[in-house]
Amino acid sequence: MAHVSIETALDTVTRLLISAGVSDERAQRAAHLYVRASQDGVYSHGLHFVPHVLRAIEHGSIKDPNTEPRLVATHGAIERYDGLYGLGVLNAQWCMSRAIALAEEHGIGCVALRNTNHWGRAGHYGWQAAEAGCPAICWTNTIQNQPAWGSKTDAIGNNPLVMAAPGMDGKHLVLDIAMSQFSMGRLNTHKITGEPLPVAGGVDKDGKPTTDAAAILDGGHAWPMGFWKGSGLAILLDVLAAILADGNDTADITAKRQGEHGPSQVYLVFQPNKLGGRDASQRTASLIKHLAEINPDSRYPGQAAIKNRERSTTEGIWVDDVVWQSLIDKLG
Amino acid sequence: MAHVSIETALDTVTRLLISAGVSDERAQRAAHLYVRASQDGVYSHGLHFVPHVLRAIEHGSIKDPNTEPRLVATHGAIERYDGLYGLGVLNAQWCMSRAIALAEEHGIGCVALRNTNHWGRAGHYGWQAAEAGCPAICWTNTIQNQPAWGSKTDAIGNNPLVMAAPGMDGKHLVLDIAMSQFSMGRLNTHKITGEPLPVAGGVDKDGKPTTDAAAILDGGHAWPMGFWKGSGLAILLDVLAAILADGNDTADITAKRQGEHGPSQVYLVFQPNKLGGRDASQRTASLIKHLAEINPDSRYPGQAAIKNRERSTTEGIWVDDVVWQSLIDKLG
Repeated sequence: MAHVSIETALDTVTRLLISAGVSDERAQRAAHLYVRASQDGVYSHGLHFVPHVLRAIEHGSIKDPNTEPRLVATHGAIERYDGLYGLGVLNAQWCMSRAIALAEEHGIGCVALRNTNHWGRAGHYGWQAAEAGCPAICWTNTIQNQPAWGSKTDAIGNNPLVMAAPGMDGKHLVLDIAMSQFSMGRLNTHKITGEPLPVAGGVDKDGKPTTDAAAILDGGHAWPMGFWKGSGLAILLDVLAAILADGNDTADITAKRQGEHGPSQVYLVFQPNKLGGRDASQRTASLIKHLAEINPDSRYPGQAAIKNRERSTTEGIWVDDVVWQSLIDKLG
Repeated sequence: MAHVSIETALDTVTRLLISAGVSDERAQRAAHLYVRASQDGVYSHGLHFVPHVLRAIEHGSIKDPNTEPRLVATHGAIERYDGLYGLGVLNAQWCMSRAIALAEEHGIGCVALRNTNHWGRAGHYGWQAAEAGCPAICWTNTIQNQPAWGSKTDAIGNNPLVMAAPGMDGKHLVLDIAMSQFSMGRLNTHKITGEPLPVAGGVDKDGKPTTDAAAILDGGHAWPMGFWKGSGLAILLDVLAAILADGNDTADITAKRQGEHGPSQVYLVFQPNKLGGRDASQRTASLIKHLAEINPDSRYPGQAAIKNRERSTTEGIWVDDVVWQSLIDKLG
């Protein structure tokens, strides 16, 4: 396990993206997002995600990493874009910026995006809105990676959902959850370490509930979060994204057999301060304070990211040795 | 256990509301919503909810059952209303209608409502939007009725969330979920029957996970759905509703010690057909068909409501004997 400084990580990833054909300014912005994910403790979509992105550019599933989303249709406060199979993280960042601008004008803004690529760490775009002072909701669909409740065959996605509320002094509330009880990244980590999951996370190959991540991954099935509830949420998030973007739904993405290629996404932003009333950030701060008063051990969404970010700023970013070495080697 | 016809139920509830001071037209509309909840199998917020509403009118926690929400602030596609502590079901129906109209104009519409009363069955307003051909999201906050994950004291609400997508031939997708793994209504039913919950639904008074609803209700605590995930969702739904409505948050409602009085709610409606592209209803229908093909046993959100509605149309509505008799007695 290596620890690298944020500067080194940013420099390395930027140079790798530039050698893959990404323009300087875009490479810097994308590198910032990958490094920030690791910094915030979301390792699976941080530095560890970079080799996947470089391969996707090489193989053409990221068609042109320098395109921006193209406007397809617009009506008042809602706009529909085609992602042109561009770079997922930058398409997402672009759409959230656009939704913030729409909300500035209309009080609420909605951008629906189709034909994009994997947006990496979902939470980024919640942080982006919160840092701009805006409450926001965004989500993506995915390939079929879990059974609908009551079924035994993978039929629905784990469709990550993000909700954000701006707080004070950088203490924003940012929820970033996949609709499976455990993300693929977390199941893989537990499989490697052998540590049992804190609660049953799915069934083994015989249909028996288990806390053994390896048994779930090797022939079993992951459970939706909250069982039937997460299953229902995943179905609705999928159909709403597909309808609003006029894009692929989970079944369409899966049928194309190109992995997480061409998902549909929705970005919703609010500008409540346009309506007057009490300040949004102060209300968020007071809710966080209230939760801590009731019980100092309770967690709020975004808290872990803030702690990890502070720690890795001084200690450097944790990265798997093999992954890091492979990135260094690529630079030659 | 009595079975009453829909006509009898509608007539009885309408007359009860009128004698409580509700105007004829509003009494008819409210009665329709309470009866429809029972018809759809949501008994806790159907006929069984009516005695609670009558008491609330009598005691003044429903201040004036004949007021409509009052506009507080507006900016483009978002509007903020004060519910004036009116009748929760009709305030909610009114706000969803208004959000549909806003979406017609702006492609998306958002109504935030403060100082309302319990909206009964959450799913109603999803069905309302879907029947108008619109995808929609709405939610409410509540009193503190479950601990935040990692805590032992009730600090967050179970804040019901609704998501809807219009389908074909009345087969809409309507998700209606509280942020607890089991609703209070369902826990109470299992406590009475003694039937164990299908999965652990919380902890008993000693902090031990249990499927015994009585142990959860008598000194224990209900779990958020999906553990830390539902806890995070409940926190974000609360703060967003409070910020957008400039209304009470869960802690404010609880501090007032008047029960589920004065919650904040958000109604979000989309009009994707304004953007052209494939028809929303056809896409929903095709997703439902696809799920059924993969596994005939899988459920989709709204399916149970449709089945219950069909059955109770012919068989009548199930209602607890004691509750029904008390309603009949009230009419004198």
